[in-house]
Amino acid sequence: MIQNKIKKIVIITAMQAEALPIVNKLGLIEKNDPTIKPFKIFSKQDDQHECVLITNGICPKYEVDRVCTQPAALTTWEAIRLFSPDLIINAGTAGGFLRNGANVNDVYISDDTIDYHDRRIPLPGFKEYGIGNFPCLSTNKIANDLNLKKGKISTGNSLDMCVADEELINLNQAQVKDMEAAAIAEVAWLKDTPMIAIKSITDLIDSTAKTEEEFINNLESAVKILAEKMQQITGYIFDKTVTEL
Amino acid sequence: MIQNKIKKIVIITAMQAEALPIVNKLGLIEKNDPTIKPFKIFSKQDDQHECVLITNGICPKYEVDRVCTQPAALTTWEAIRLFSPDLIINAGTAGGFLRNGANVNDVYISDDTIDYHDRRIPLPGFKEYGIGNFPCLSTNKIANDLNLKKGKISTGNSLDMCVADEELINLNQAQVKDMEAAAIAEVAWLKDTPMIAIKSITDLIDSTAKTEEEFINNLESAVKILAEKMQQITGYIFDKTVTEL
Repeated sequence: MIQNKIKKIVIITAMQAEALPIVNKLGLIEKNDPTIKPFKIFSKQDDQHECVLITNGICPKYEVDRVCTQPAALTTWEAIRLFSPDLIINAGTAGGFLRNGANVNDVYISDDTIDYHDRRIPLPGFKEYGIGNFPCLSTNKIANDLNLKKGKISTGNSLDMCVADEELINLNQAQVKDMEAAAIAEVAWLKDTPMIAIKSITDLIDSTAKTEEEFINNLESAVKILAEKMQQITGYIFDKTVTEL
Repeated sequence: MIQNKIKKIVIITAMQAEALPIVNKLGLIEKNDPTIKPFKIFSKQDDQHECVLITNGICPKYEVDRVCTQPAALTTWEAIRLFSPDLIINAGTAGGFLRNGANVNDVYISDDTIDYHDRRIPLPGFKEYGIGNFPCLSTNKIANDLNLKKGKISTGNSLDMCVADEELINLNQAQVKDMEAAAIAEVAWLKDTPMIAIKSITDLIDSTAKTEEEFINNLESAVKILAEKMQQITGYIFDKTVTEL
């Protein structure tokens, strides 16, 4: 089977603070189109390549970024409907684990599948569906070439980690804990669209520091490094096939 | 302001077992249209009224109903895009609480707002967004006229209830615990579409019985009663305005 070269990439981010450094680094321009509300779309196109970044947008009720899996599922769905990308990249921040040797500002790339850790459904068949194990691209080459850590990502809707979440994160053998990637992987897989996730670590979940304080303190540096990596990654990916990653 | 009479209702269900008794009771016909995959759509229309039922469909990987909030958000989004309904009704099964006087097979109608109980985000502004408090219609008249219990619904992605979930359910003062309604309310509100939820109780969360066993044992009777109520409810709602409910 002849594989097409990647010509169109859609980057999905949850938070504006994650998106804007990437937008600036890649030179993307905001689309002013009220019909795409609540999403925000930034893009750049030449006769060979198209790069689009789409965020979940701002909640009109609380005026904060629409984080969590429900908006991420919608954004992915609309991104595929509007742009039919050759590849989706979920770029964002996440938590890591000291026990796996993670450091703040490490940048991880997703590894084979992405799980949920807050969909506990102890019914036949539903248990596995809840966890998900939704496929993403296997990407040894890009990880080596661009010096990215490979890590299994597990997704839940909370910034903190309760006991029940921790049990599933351990069961999922996750190295990275985020709040969107599994939903994006689930929709991308449903729509036959290749997907990877790139996660810059803001907090170490098993350290003694409070997650929310670490997150706030490290957000700026983590998104700066994320944007630099995303510039390398998009440059690396264009004109390769998915099996060359 | 003159309000339009309700002529087009979209019913959203997560599980096929919840949908089919309603489909049969209302005489809806399945649409065979591969472009609407993974959703399943059933409908009935005359020159005055249109009633559509849409389910999240079956997960092709695990061959179970696509329960949880991510599919529910997508289904609501597509339901509004495809049908522009005057009213969305989320019909399904849920857990109740002995301490609030709930019984298996009670049918609740949503009350003013719907919350999440598994989106814990202890950051300024995000905490409230996580819980949601997304509006649904206030419906005293229909509750009285059709003998429905009114109850605050709280939504999470798990069938069971962990300690962290319970804390937020208590804080949300919820009488009904389900797995989709908040996501449907969130999207309906974003798209300016009135919404109510109708939930038939399969299990009593604070009883000594195991939730999953109660759910399996009581599902058939709960969905039968749900379908009967949905027949009354749709008949009652057509040609009323939302403020007449």
